[in-house]
Formats: sequence, structure tokens, C-alpha cells
Amino acid sequence: MKCFGRGLIVGAALITGASAFAQTPSWTPPAESARCPSKWGAGDERGAANLMIPESIVNAAKLIRTGELIELGRVLSASMPTFPGRSYKVTTKRTAVSGTNRLAANEEVVEAEMGQVGTQFDGFAHIGHENSFYNCFKLEAIATRTGFSKLGIHNVGTLFARGVLIDVAAYKGVDILGDTYEITAADLEGAVRRQNVVLQRGDAILVHTGWGRLWGIDNVRYGKSSPGIGVEAAQWLVAREPMLLGGDNFAVEVFPNPDPRVYVPVHQLAITTNGIHLLENMKLDELAAKRVYEFAFIVQPLKLEGATGSTVAPVALR
Amino acid sequence: MKCFGRGLIVGAALITGASAFAQTPSWTPPAESARCPSKWGAGDERGAANLMIPESIVNAAKLIRTGELIELGRVLSASMPTFPGRSYKVTTKRTAVSGTNRLAANEEVVEAEMGQVGTQFDGFAHIGHENSFYNCFKLEAIATRTGFSKLGIHNVGTLFARGVLIDVAAYKGVDILGDTYEITAADLEGAVRRQNVVLQRGDAILVHTGWGRLWGIDNVRYGKSSPGIGVEAAQWLVAREPMLLGGDNFAVEVFPNPDPRVYVPVHQLAITTNGIHLLENMKLDELAAKRVYEFAFIVQPLKLEGATGSTVAPVALR
Amino acid sequence: MKCFGRGLIVGAALITGASAFAQTPSWTPPAESARCPSKWGAGDERGAANLMIPESIVNAAKLIRTGELIELGRVLSASMPTFPGRSYKVTTKRTAVSGTNRLAANEEVVEAEMGQVGTQFDGFAHIGHENSFYNCFKLEAIATRTGFSKLGIHNVGTLFARGVLIDVAAYKGVDILGDTYEITAADLEGAVRRQNVVLQRGDAILVHTGWGRLWGIDNVRYGKSSPGIGVEAAQWLVAREPMLLGGDNFAVEVFPNPDPRVYVPVHQLAITTNGIHLLENMKLDELAAKRVYEFAFIVQPLKLEGATGSTVAPVALR
Amino acid sequence: MKCFGRGLIVGAALITGASAFAQTPSWTPPAESARCPSKWGAGDERGAANLMIPESIVNAAKLIRTGELIELGRVLSASMPTFPGRSYKVTTKRTAVSGTNRLAANEEVVEAEMGQVGTQFDGFAHIGHENSFYNCFKLEAIATRTGFSKLGIHNVGTLFARGVLIDVAAYKGVDILGDTYEITAADLEGAVRRQNVVLQRGDAILVHTGWGRLWGIDNVRYGKSSPGIGVEAAQWLVAREPMLLGGDNFAVEVFPNPDPRVYVPVHQLAITTNGIHLLENMKLDELAAKRVYEFAFIVQPLKLEGATGSTVAPVALR
Repeated sequence: MKCFGRGLIVGAALITGASAFAQTPSWTPPAESARCPSKWGAGDERGAANLMIPESIVNAAKLIRTGELIELGRVLSASMPTFPGRSYKVTTKRTAVSGTNRLAANEEVVEAEMGQVGTQFDGFAHIGHENSFYNCFKLEAIATRTGFSKLGIHNVGTLFARGVLIDVAAYKGVDILGDTYEITAADLEGAVRRQNVVLQRGDAILVHTGWGRLWGIDNVRYGKSSPGIGVEAAQWLVAREPMLLGGDNFAVEVFPNPDPRVYVPVHQLAITTNGIHLLENMKLDELAAKRVYEFAFIVQPLKLEGATGSTVAPVALR
Repeated sequence: MKCFGRGLIVGAALITGASAFAQTPSWTPPAESARCPSKWGAGDERGAANLMIPESIVNAAKLIRTGELIELGRVLSASMPTFPGRSYKVTTKRTAVSGTNRLAANEEVVEAEMGQVGTQFDGFAHIGHENSFYNCFKLEAIATRTGFSKLGIHNVGTLFARGVLIDVAAYKGVDILGDTYEITAADLEGAVRRQNVVLQRGDAILVHTGWGRLWGIDNVRYGKSSPGIGVEAAQWLVAREPMLLGGDNFAVEVFPNPDPRVYVPVHQLAITTNGIHLLENMKLDELAAKRVYEFAFIVQPLKLEGATGSTVAPVALR
Repeated sequence: MKCFGRGLIVGAALITGASAFAQTPSWTPPAESARCPSKWGAGDERGAANLMIPESIVNAAKLIRTGELIELGRVLSASMPTFPGRSYKVTTKRTAVSGTNRLAANEEVVEAEMGQVGTQFDGFAHIGHENSFYNCFKLEAIATRTGFSKLGIHNVGTLFARGVLIDVAAYKGVDILGDTYEITAADLEGAVRRQNVVLQRGDAILVHTGWGRLWGIDNVRYGKSSPGIGVEAAQWLVAREPMLLGGDNFAVEVFPNPDPRVYVPVHQLAITTNGIHLLENMKLDELAAKRVYEFAFIVQPLKLEGATGSTVAPVALR
Repeated sequence: MKCFGRGLIVGAALITGASAFAQTPSWTPPAESARCPSKWGAGDERGAANLMIPESIVNAAKLIRTGELIELGRVLSASMPTFPGRSYKVTTKRTAVSGTNRLAANEEVVEAEMGQVGTQFDGFAHIGHENSFYNCFKLEAIATRTGFSKLGIHNVGTLFARGVLIDVAAYKGVDILGDTYEITAADLEGAVRRQNVVLQRGDAILVHTGWGRLWGIDNVRYGKSSPGIGVEAAQWLVAREPMLLGGDNFAVEVFPNPDPRVYVPVHQLAITTNGIHLLENMKLDELAAKRVYEFAFIVQPLKLEGATGSTVAPVALR
């Protein structure tokens, strides 16, 4: 157990390299006593979204200077890559025609893991440690067959914040980071320095790996592994107190983790331990190409009652 | 056929009152020759969303002065009112636990008319005249079993605009307009005058009827009929060249139409004829209670490829 | 714990009447040590379906003398009664036309609890005692997000057996038994005697309550409660070693149970304890009207891998 | 237009070989005037299922001599081959525990083209010629968003008939017929002669190609093409007046048709023109291995109101 910056809890990270493991796993979530109640108080369900306050909204709005709008969301289709066990299916209904005005009406049925396909926003019921979720809400107390009575994505609402892109691929001088490359804290520091941008509390921090270039081009490779932040880099980011962490890959974090014993530990570190949302499968190529590193960031998770996440269509404005 | 303002096409509206009908129906969509190509050019798929330009975005951002954020979207649940033939179903999956970090993962399957439930944003493939849609795209040319090859909702993206609330209920001095009350152009003019607000080209115009008070309280009454704008009022609004028209009822327009021969004609007038999106089932009570009549309006339709609409979670910022 | 007939395990049934309860609940499932391994051996997944053997098949076939076929299944539609939390939704796809032969093809998407709607056949993964199912298969060992690795309905296959209708409504001289009437062992004995039929090992025993008359006529009343067999009657039936128990109500058993502390105990008694399938929501009016008490019974559960049940369309032949 | 046997309508089949085409397509459905009303009378919706009569049922029952039961249906799973645009998805719900009896209940949601996956039984609303279906029911008159008001699969019910296996693979001396092999009438005649079996009016005729060996082993090859009957063989079969035609491939017929201009013409010939059901993706290996050529055949299509087909779990008894 270590503490960073303003008292953030970042768990036991023993990892020192990708090739050698200590006898204990590289990541173990902190005990409940160490992470609960959360810094936002017992019963809190918003986590780092609490960092959105009137002042931060006004400041983010000031970043809209040219009126340029850059879409950061992926198009949802049956041919997009999806994580194993998930799918996306649309069925267009037959056209109905009514009235003397011969009004033709169309609609469609969608069947999907709507919280976990496409560009996806992870809520706090998505990831836990055993039966314990953010702020120590217990699985058996909040899970129902149709959703979660606490921590549901419908509580989040629009997030409007300063957005920052950290272009690690550009910092490394590559189009795409290696298939299993673990981004380090040093990489982030270097990239931020190169971009001459200062991270601020409450930022939506988006990490560009270049992995998004494979989306729709080589879905098999896209889903098989992914470069991304590891536990150490995540701790470095968490210490900056972001509102959310996003990426142009399917897990934000490196996958699989260099330590094969742990499973997507950054998810536990961000979501369960620190109440920080993750935003996956983003389209970050345009931001990167235009070197847009600071912007107003807007995302509107759907109000799916009790759901674990939401597919979203976020945007950058400047 | 009559022309208004800047050459808008508003069809043949012969209605002169709710109680007496001419022998011809009160609304007939204009011929294709009169509405195509659209004012945005042949092949255009964005319609009035073209009114969003860098300048309009910058101007809308300037309305964000206090940092207050007001949610305008409804929570999606199986108990919300839905139009006949539509439903919303969520099934929470069993929890999966992985790794030495004992990561518990939850997700859910959603099955619904995702474009047409909850607070819903109508795209241009939703409504047509016979086999002809906005800008005269033909049904047989664009419809597939899994979506529309043109006019799909995924083309829309984030809309960021000046928003204006027209509180007709307040103007009429009631909490809720009558069950089948047709809002007139005079009502809109009176309400706008009372609020001392000037409509501008490209506005997101939201009409408050008070009908939203029934949402979740009396779903049967909510869906049986609805006060809302009629054809005449819609023509008045269309002439102001809005980016979209929204309401706190399920059709924006009055339902059923006072002329029983025509079926939701304002849908055809707005969407098919003029390329103006509709935004239904909004939560407008907070805006109305706080008398917030001008604000930055943001909506992010999902990028559902080829879909006819999207459930959304819009917001007002000021 | 009591033992009946040929060593069947029927749990602790203390109930002596519907109006007075002992301090202990009227039904407690027997301990695992008392019910496992099942009489069909450790690891068995077929339960009483093991009673179908070549000889029983040949004997059942001999009951087909006139060639009369009587359908026992309900039509599946969105308007049928469904248990809370279940639904049935069909979406017809758009017609596709192909080839010089102008072949028009239609198909539809169905979304439903396919194992638990309409006339439904309960498999052994459907009901357990805590985490223990038929033959003591453990929930944590067999449950996955997409089905059960043991006890799945796909193992059942066609059941072809002698069928017997026990018309309790006729025995009681009513069209429909009372809304919460608990059928007793004496009722069954009386009805069987009246019909002059002898129950045999391996029979598909169907109990006619008349409740099916409400199907599609008064769905609210149909689902609110139901006459049916209680624990005592179920024990009496189990002692006759049937292959399955069916009824023209939604639970076969009385609902709610006269003892409000226990929940559908006959399900546990039949399925979990004795490996006897239940078959619900049957259409038994024609059998009853024609006084067909003995027949060849055929049911073909779908081969839904790992599912808990199957909607079915059984039939009686004579 | 040619007429066979008892006046059956078999359309214009000009095909004389797989490698050379006449200028006119090899198959054109007969005009409505030539096929309507059907031989079963105007308004009939049962087609060849009318051949099931008490006498045929009694005769089929007599074939049950040893009590052997052979399953002919495939297990439904997400990993089975499905036709493009179709899928099968099961989501197990969370376990619910109720009562002092601690009853654990499981169920699942299934989303699929339930009429057209796995071993599938084609109804008459599945296939038409332009807008005209069996017995000239018109698409616009019978199609709704949730099913067909005529020709729905719920009308079929249990089919109990004499079943005959025609093992063409064995006749040809191979395990699997060639990937695009068109079975000819001569093949069928030879195979029937070799088996020393006589086809009878009302038979369920199942054709063994060996293609089923690929199911679950090489799904890509299974779905890419298929040996099967061509138009000529289908006409030969239709002339024998079967109740249904089945196969161990996905279309019963050869796919693609040797004439690339026509699309699955045997579907139109059987279903639309003659009202004969098709039964696809059957598991016929056991019948073939045991040389079971005559048996009682039973299939129970689900009573999906207005649907175009049904996944089924048929069986052979002898």
C-alpha cells in the first residue's frame, strides 16, 4: 500500500518490469479499510465526476475558441471489433405507412451489450474486487437481474471538462505502439513535457497509442492484445486526479498485463479503488494528427438505469 | 403550397381550426419537385444540422457563464412509457471473477428500439412520405435489414448550439396543457414575447407543455394523447430555421392530430420536408422551473450505423 | 424426512392444512446427503427421463389407435401472459428479394426467455436449493454467462411416453378450480378412481385445473395466483414415479403456496430433489372435453445448449 | 411449365447440366394462375401437411417396433454455423433465491432468428415469389412488424409421419458429396432402389449428403457451399407428394445453384409453389450409419405466432 499526492490509494504495485515477476502478483487491490469510504464520502456514487463543478465547466467552455468540433466516437456496426461474449445487432423493422399524408415510419431493434460496445464509458458497477465495488458497495446488495440499484451509469450524466491528449505514440516516434507495449510513467511524463501541456485536477486525460488505426482494418489484431498504460503509469495518472482516463484501445490499459496472473488491474485501480471512469475504443487519430492537446471535452453516457456502462459518442471542442 | 421566410417549404396546410376540416386533409406533404433537392443541396444528409458552424459553436459556448448544468434526458428503464410496439429490456449478466486480483466484471445485454425509446432523437431515415425521405432519398435504395445506407443517425454527431426554451404552459398559466391541446403560432409568439427572448437561426428550440409531469406518474395518460405543436405552429417554427425542435412529450407535436385523417404530420413537415430533427420525451421541468430560456444545448446521438434515431441524454449549460 | 413407495425422497413436509402452520416451514428440501447421488446414479443428468426405455416407447406407441392428434401447446405471442421479468418479442425483418426467380425471403428475430415462456418445459438447471441442483451439481461449477455446463436442456431430447390426464376440475365438478385451491392427494386419488385409469411408472402426468380457460382471456387473473398441486399431492405423484408432471397453469403447483414462507416448493421437490421435469401453461381443454385420459404423449424440448428450459409444443396422440 | 404425376406444378425447369445454361434462367416460378388456388383449396395454409390424416398417423405409429429413438436435431449454440445475418445469443440471468426453502431459480434470455437457426423448419411465410406466397397470399396483406397474419408457423403443429432416409452419399460411395454437387433425380432413384424402399405419399423424405459431418468441425466450409438436390431432383421428389423434405445441409438444395442467376430455387419450388416444408441442418449421421431408412418421424415446430419458421428438435422412432 502506497499513497500518492493528495492521499490517493493506488494499491500494492510491485511490478518493476515486464519480464520478471516477484513471487507476489504485481497488483493487489487495497483492502476495503484502505479505500472506503472513498475520498468523496461514504455512500458517494460519483467518484471523480465530483471534480466537475461550475468553475471547471466555465473554464472548459473557455477552451472553445475557434468552434472546431472533433468527433471522438466510433461508428457502431456489426462489423466492429467486440470483446469476446459481446455483440451488436440491429434489425430494421418493416416500414409502416399511415394517414392521408402517407407517413412512412421506420425504426429498428438493437440488441447489444450497450454499455460495453463501441466507444464505451465504464461505470462503477462494471468492475469490482471480489464482491466489493467502488466505495465498498457490495455485489449482493446492489445487483439485480435488470441492473444495479447503486452505481448505475444513469447517475453520471454529461461530463463537460478540460480534455488533454497525451500522445505517447508521437512521443515514441511511432505510428502505433507495440502490440503489448506497457506505457510507463516516464513515457507519460516525457509526452506531456514534449507537448508542453500541464495536467490539471479534473481533466479528461486521453492517451493516444495509435492502436486505433487497426479498428475496422484488422479487428483480430485489435482485440488480441493492446498497448496501453500499466499499473505504474495508471498510478502516475491517478495521482493527477483526473475525472476520467480514455484511450484509443479496448482497455485503456495494456492487455494482457505483463504479469499474467493479474487481469486488467488498471480497471480495478481506476474504477474500484479510485472512482475514475475509463473510456475505451476512442477515435483519437484526428486529435493526434492536428496536435490538439487541450480542448473542451464532452461525453453524455446514456441514462441506462442501473447499467454498468454506456456506449458513447464523445467530442472535443476548441 | 406556401413559402415562408427564407424560402422554406412547409407544405399545404389548410387547417384553420381544430374543430372544422376542409374536404382535403389538413396536411399534405409537398411534392418531391417542391422539396428536392433540399436547400442544403442534392445528396445532403445533414439538413438543419448544417446550421452548426464554428461561429455558432463559439457563440453557444459564450452562453456558459455560471457553469450550471441541467440534465434534459430521461432515465431509461423497463417501467418508462414506450410507444406501442417498442420496449426496453436489460439483462444483467452473471458476475465473472478473474485473476489473482480477483477482478469482478459485470455487464448487461440491452434489447430495445434504441433509437426510439426514452429521450429520443429522430434521424432522417425515421420518417418519410411514401417511399421518399429527406432530400428524396428513396426507401428501396437505402433500406437494408440492418439499417439505412443513407441518412443514418451515425452521420449526425454532437450538436452544440444555442438552446431556447419556449414555455407555452407558463404562457398559458397552467402546469400542464390540455390532453389534446394544439399549440398555435400565436401561442409561440406570445410565449416568446413574454420571455423576452429572440429566436435565432440554428437554435435548438424546446417547447415546454408540462406533459412531462406525467412521465413515470401516469404512463397511460402520457401515451394516450399529448398536447403539442400543430402544423401551423410547426410552420411558424420552421420559418425561424431551427437546428432542431424538442419537447417534453412523446411526439413534440399534438397527438392525435386534430384532423384524424393525418398521422403525426409535423414529423413529415420537420424531418422529411425540412431536414429538421425532433427530440422527444425531454425532461424540461428544471429549465422551466428556473426560467432558463437561453443556454448552451448539447446532444450526442449515438453512432448507430444506419439507424433511424438515437436515445440520448442531452444537457443545458449556462 | 420421510420415504415413500420405492424409496423416493420427498423432503420434510409438515403441512397438514392450508390454514394452520407449524412453527417450521411446511417444506424444507432434504439435505444433500439424503438426495445425492440421485437414484439414477452420481453424475446422472436425465433424472426421470431415464424411465423412457425401448419398452416404454413401444407401449406408448400402441396407444395410437385412431390417429387422433391433440395439440397441447399454447401459441406464443407478445400478448400471452408471462411471468414477471419475462417477455416475448418478435421483429419481422424486411423482405429480401434475390435472383432472376425473384425469390422473396422473410425471417424474424425473436427475443425472449425461450425456456420460460408459453408452454414451457423446465430443465434441471432451472431450480435448485441454494447453490445445489439436481444430483448435487453445484451452481458455481456449472453456471456460465451463456448457459450451464451440466443439466442443460439440450440433454433431454424427445420424450415419448404414455400420457395420463388427471382431471381434478371435473372430479370437483367445476370448470375452474378456485384461485388458490391446493389440490390434495385425496383429490388426485379421487380423480384417478373416477376416470378408472391406473398410473404407471414413467407416465407423463398432466393435471387439469381449468385454469387454462383464463389464458388470453384474463391474463392478469391467470398470473396473479393459481390452483394447483401442493407439496402433499406432489409427494403422492412423485411416489408414482412419473417421467414428468404437467399442468394447465403457470407453475403446475398451487401459487402462492398456502404457506407464505416457502416459494414454489413443488418445483424443488420435483426438479431438484427427484429429477422430474415440470411442464407448464399447457392447453388441456381439448383433452378434458373429450375425456381423453390415456394417450401417447410427445414433447420435443429445443436443444438450447446449457439452457434451463424450453418453450415447447407437445401433443397427445391416440 | 410442366406437370408431373398427380398434377403437381413444378415450374419451368430448363436446366440440363451444371455447366451450360440456356439463355433463359433454369428456373422460373409458375404464374399465379398456374399454382393458385393450391391443390388444397383457396385459403389453405397447411399445404402438404394436409397429408397427415388419422390413417397416416396410425400407419406411422406401427413403424415403432423396437422402441429405438434417434435424435435428428442439432444442439443450438453460439458456435454453430449460421447463415449470414443470423445469430444465436444466450444470456444467463443472475440466480434468484427465494423463500425459507431457499429456492434458487435460473433462466436465460435468448436472442436469435428462432425460425432460422440450428435444425430449422421452414414455414410458408419464409419464401415467396415477388410479393406472392403459398396459395397466393400477398405480402402486403399478411406482413406486419411482428409476424404474418397468414401462413404463420404456429399453424403447423406436430407432424407425425412415415419418415424415409435417402442416403445419396452411400449410393455414391462417399462419406460426403462434393462441395457443390447437384443431386439428380437419377441419384435419388438409384439410392431408393439400392435401399429397397418405396416412397409413399405423405412421407417425410430426408436426404443424406454427408455434409453434416462438417457441422461444428468446419463451419466455414459448411456454410460456403453445399451439395444438395437441384431443381430436377426436387421436381422428382415433389411428384412423390411428400409431406416435407429434409437434409443434413443448410438449404436441403444445392448451394449455390449451378445456374448463378437463380437463388435457392428449390425453396420456391417446394414452399411457394407446392406448399411443402423444408427441414434444414438435420443430424442424419446416426440414421445413415445404422441404415435406418424407414421410421416414424416426429417434429414439433414451435407455435411462434406468425413466424416464418421454427428451430426444431425432430426425432426418428422405430
